[in-house]
Amino acid sequence: MANNFDWTRSFTVDFSLVTGLSGTAESSKRYLSKVAGMFYDDAAATELLKGGDPLIYEFYELGVPELPGDIAFGTSITYPGKVGREFYMTKGHFHTVLETAEVYFCLSGEGGMIFENPEGDVSFEEFKPGVSVYVPQRYAHRSVNTGSSPLVTFFAFRGDAGHDYGTIETKGYRKLVVEKASGGYELIDNPKWKAE
Amino acid sequence: MANNFDWTRSFTVDFSLVTGLSGTAESSKRYLSKVAGMFYDDAAATELLKGGDPLIYEFYELGVPELPGDIAFGTSITYPGKVGREFYMTKGHFHTVLETAEVYFCLSGEGGMIFENPEGDVSFEEFKPGVSVYVPQRYAHRSVNTGSSPLVTFFAFRGDAGHDYGTIETKGYRKLVVEKASGGYELIDNPKWKAE
Repeated sequence: MANNFDWTRSFTVDFSLVTGLSGTAESSKRYLSKVAGMFYDDAAATELLKGGDPLIYEFYELGVPELPGDIAFGTSITYPGKVGREFYMTKGHFHTVLETAEVYFCLSGEGGMIFENPEGDVSFEEFKPGVSVYVPQRYAHRSVNTGSSPLVTFFAFRGDAGHDYGTIETKGYRKLVVEKASGGYELIDNPKWKAE
Repeated sequence: MANNFDWTRSFTVDFSLVTGLSGTAESSKRYLSKVAGMFYDDAAATELLKGGDPLIYEFYELGVPELPGDIAFGTSITYPGKVGREFYMTKGHFHTVLETAEVYFCLSGEGGMIFENPEGDVSFEEFKPGVSVYVPQRYAHRSVNTGSSPLVTFFAFRGDAGHDYGTIETKGYRKLVVEKASGGYELIDNPKWKAE
């Protein structure tokens, strides 16, 4: 499968409302070995990798033209699981065109999205099926699965927005989402976070 | 309920995955009496209105800032029914900023979307649950419910795209979607369509 579409005419892409997976388009997959450094507990990540290389999340890049008039869209699937106390999550990103927003619509599963702008303002919104979450301009955003089934969302953003992973990879997020000893989740300061 | 959101910070809006309706936001409703002229069979519309004023469709306008960096989103619900042979549908629109795209994601029901650009190129895509339909730049687009339950879609487009209903109201669409005598649907030329 290759994701080749003519964006100057109408077309369709199918996605399962339950799994988020497409029968016709090809996803991008992120396995633990490639994203282990984003979790704070290095020892737990190393231990997990001894038993295999779990798929942490996958999403669809459909090849939208990088034009301000086009709209990128697809699904994102974050699998259930933890690295130590920390829930599986996406790498998260700023948009390269920082002043562009995005919307996520939750189809299945539960969890949340954590937000952070360059000035350090942080917020968190909960996902459950039917909840749309607005990503304002200028906010990095990351999906976190706090449940026991895949967290499936449909997303849309401007075609030229781009993804800036580098800033987040270097500095990390200020806050992490971990399991509470009593069950459920809580946000804690990221011990790996670097101020500059 | 009023749709007042601060688009500079994250927020959520809930929508039912089955009905498309929100428990927290207010929809805009289009009853037959306000949109009867878009159906080709005036006698059938008049007859229907004698029995009441059915809700043809509703959708959410959440008050997005009209900025190119923001993303408008919400659900659109087109109810099942016919005016004569013609299936219930939305009024449809061009974007005022013609070079802006949109995406629709079908959550429930069945039907399709009909497309037409200013040069007269027409296309049609089928909706069923899980199908995303891409609206390319420069294409007017209208949802049509060819099934027996509400057609529910989630949509997203650029905040400043705007809606140009006037062109379509004056000229109509070149093609209409009607019930076939043998069941199912077919596209026919719009007898009301005006070339200029």
